[in-house]
Amino acid sequence: MDKIWSSDDILESGLLHRSLKVAPYMAKNASGSYIYLQDGTEILDGCGGAAVISVGHSNPEVIEAVTEQLKTITYVHTAEYTTAVSEELANLLLESYKGKVAKVYFVNSGSEANEAAIKMSLQYFYEQGKTEKTHFISRKQSYHGNCLGGMSLSGHVVRREPFEGIISSNFHQVSPANEYRFKNSGESTADYVKRLASELEEEILKIGPEKVACFFAETIVGATTACLPAPEGYFKAIQAVCQKYDVLLALDEIMCGSGRTGTFFAWEAEGIVPDITTAGKALSGGYSPLSAVFLAQKFVDVLGAGSNSFNCGHTYQSFALSSAAGLSVQKIIRRDGFLQNVVEMGKYLEYSLKQALSSSKVVGNIRGRGLFWGIEFVSSRATKHPIGATIHFGYMVQRAIFEEGVAVYPGFGTVDGHSGDHILIAPPFNVTKQQIDRIVAATSKGISKIESSLFSVTNGDSTDS
Amino acid sequence: MDKIWSSDDILESGLLHRSLKVAPYMAKNASGSYIYLQDGTEILDGCGGAAVISVGHSNPEVIEAVTEQLKTITYVHTAEYTTAVSEELANLLLESYKGKVAKVYFVNSGSEANEAAIKMSLQYFYEQGKTEKTHFISRKQSYHGNCLGGMSLSGHVVRREPFEGIISSNFHQVSPANEYRFKNSGESTADYVKRLASELEEEILKIGPEKVACFFAETIVGATTACLPAPEGYFKAIQAVCQKYDVLLALDEIMCGSGRTGTFFAWEAEGIVPDITTAGKALSGGYSPLSAVFLAQKFVDVLGAGSNSFNCGHTYQSFALSSAAGLSVQKIIRRDGFLQNVVEMGKYLEYSLKQALSSSKVVGNIRGRGLFWGIEFVSSRATKHPIGATIHFGYMVQRAIFEEGVAVYPGFGTVDGHSGDHILIAPPFNVTKQQIDRIVAATSKGISKIESSLFSVTNGDSTDS
Repeated sequence: MDKIWSSDDILESGLLHRSLKVAPYMAKNASGSYIYLQDGTEILDGCGGAAVISVGHSNPEVIEAVTEQLKTITYVHTAEYTTAVSEELANLLLESYKGKVAKVYFVNSGSEANEAAIKMSLQYFYEQGKTEKTHFISRKQSYHGNCLGGMSLSGHVVRREPFEGIISSNFHQVSPANEYRFKNSGESTADYVKRLASELEEEILKIGPEKVACFFAETIVGATTACLPAPEGYFKAIQAVCQKYDVLLALDEIMCGSGRTGTFFAWEAEGIVPDITTAGKALSGGYSPLSAVFLAQKFVDVLGAGSNSFNCGHTYQSFALSSAAGLSVQKIIRRDGFLQNVVEMGKYLEYSLKQALSSSKVVGNIRGRGLFWGIEFVSSRATKHPIGATIHFGYMVQRAIFEEGVAVYPGFGTVDGHSGDHILIAPPFNVTKQQIDRIVAATSKGISKIESSLFSVTNGDSTDS
Repeated sequence: MDKIWSSDDILESGLLHRSLKVAPYMAKNASGSYIYLQDGTEILDGCGGAAVISVGHSNPEVIEAVTEQLKTITYVHTAEYTTAVSEELANLLLESYKGKVAKVYFVNSGSEANEAAIKMSLQYFYEQGKTEKTHFISRKQSYHGNCLGGMSLSGHVVRREPFEGIISSNFHQVSPANEYRFKNSGESTADYVKRLASELEEEILKIGPEKVACFFAETIVGATTACLPAPEGYFKAIQAVCQKYDVLLALDEIMCGSGRTGTFFAWEAEGIVPDITTAGKALSGGYSPLSAVFLAQKFVDVLGAGSNSFNCGHTYQSFALSSAAGLSVQKIIRRDGFLQNVVEMGKYLEYSLKQALSSSKVVGNIRGRGLFWGIEFVSSRATKHPIGATIHFGYMVQRAIFEEGVAVYPGFGTVDGHSGDHILIAPPFNVTKQQIDRIVAATSKGISKIESSLFSVTNGDSTDS
């Protein structure tokens, strides 16, 4: 498995890579669940980058749809024009959600979608004359994007650190909803949920309900906390608090939504309907930068009685070419019953991971839903202590699994933004049983390898004492 | 020219359009400099949306390049992989700028590029231990994007209004560099430039030089002030002030760059090299959401001695499919000498506009460079008073020109964010003399039509008294 480029070569490249010192692999082509490196090495894509790939790589139908769109129209400005393909995508996505979702706003990325959600929340209250409602509450250990608004919402300490100086004091945070880590011993799930809902209520009262615009949360927490579903009843309790104080509920489903967990909206499993949902990644499955902001009727009502226009316009808003890719991906998912496969293969992945890793001393928790699974590493299952942050255990495990020909997604800071390690597994929606077997085998082997190497060289916090 | 949809239909659409009440036109296909509506109406695209179209619509070579890329690889995550097409694009863009630009970072949009520029500025000082350098200075009447960081930099009052509550106090603004509006009578350009440079220096000293990270400006101000070039010597004077206080200079060329004004970087005409340049729109010419952050060597040096990694990662960073579109567009521009055409046709456009509009009483100023021209409207050429904001003169003129089959881009708030009207003209880089004649004729006719209708109905501030 050659990198083609040496570290010297990468310094000559004009591209700013993620690392200035470590060269990435050259990816040559990709097909279905596989990525092929320049030297021909086959990688089974067990994570789709960051949970992006939904209908596989180089899907011939999507290629055909994008090619056809290229021949007619790509870019027109949405102040003057609309296109049939963007309209069709919007209507397809909303058709099953009448009365729950009224409109969708398409932009490029999860970051842009969350910024738009922030702005829509502000404008919604601004147009009602509630101009003080400019405060946001989100959760520690969350992630909501790279732009300043989303970063201000995000609770991942390390990702924010160099930028703290420009984060407005209007962004507030409450505790994450993490049963594995933060439910007290002896506390029931119902009591834990009650405690979290009370904390949110207290925070709203502390800021002043007349000042709080929106509560923002990932339905299932993604990259920062490894596919963490909320405790049962959490979102119902949270929504009740929000409604009591005229606070909007925005759910970030950039990573966990668009079918990744078995339903198009991850909140369908929570028995609630939020005011705003953001989605991306699997929505267009890696064929175009496409994200969406789904809006309840109340926004149309308020803006319709006022400015008649959302004060946010992007060049590539409702971009026809990106819409064509998204439309094709979504049609395939619906026609071929991919969500049923997500549910079935998700259960098989959960079962297989739990079987294969049952004796691993460093696997503290395996959690997720559908084809969105996280493995959190610990130095001791009993104490749940994380492995020392300087070891970079998650990255080491990811490297070892990659050496086995399978790609998974590493993460760190799982516990508190500094300590804790995990990996994410999020294969394409049409993954097969055989491919899951290979992902689980490689994962198990990779974890064992790093676990053994650490056990043999340290007696410190990475052993199970 | 039918809209196909009535206002009733648009309320049924799932798509959140720019207006909740006014239906956009349905664009069916586009080719070269033309957009065709559903009913067959041909529109000569005189603005490329918001100055996006560079090599025309449906360019067969770009279609071919994107189609070929689709067949090999679209999405891979940049933490693990790179692709030949992204590397080639980066190297092509930088090859003529050795010693001036060291690296390029590709994301989706101008908004994302400016957010990344803000974050890179902060990280640059953070890694040097200058953690107090978290303040930004930009200019009133500027525009830097939709996300919270760029919006905080932007000086366009109306676009910020509903969101003021969450803008950090670390964002400061100085006067625009607008000779037509704000140079005092009797003041020389050199003295005006000196005054503006002094104002910047005073602002830096007021905030404290140890706290100021970066000065942000559009090389030629775009949508908010209608293609306004800086006075001669302005950027040299500004850069001297920045360098004196270890303040970075970031130039936003999302709209004016990538060849739009006759040189790839608009700053090439200013005799300076900034620390950061952002680009987008014409870079990929409407075939993919692609923007770029161009970085000087100093960022590589500082990060290379520290974290080795820019703390900002996007899903669609260096996206292979977007890179393929951008690469094809840039190759065509270089091979076919499009920048020479931008210069020549730009001169012809300037000459023709000035000839055609010389007797118009509402045309206050015609300005720009290359194929990037703005027309600012006034109620009186002598007093330069704007036309009453409630008239929406810019929009009315744009509608009238559209009725003539030519698309231009309207704007408002030209003077101070509230009052003032303008239109932008920014045709494709390969526009012909005949097409310019048609754009100018339609523009002249549209302006005359609205001018006459106002002269006949009002005696107020829209007459030349």
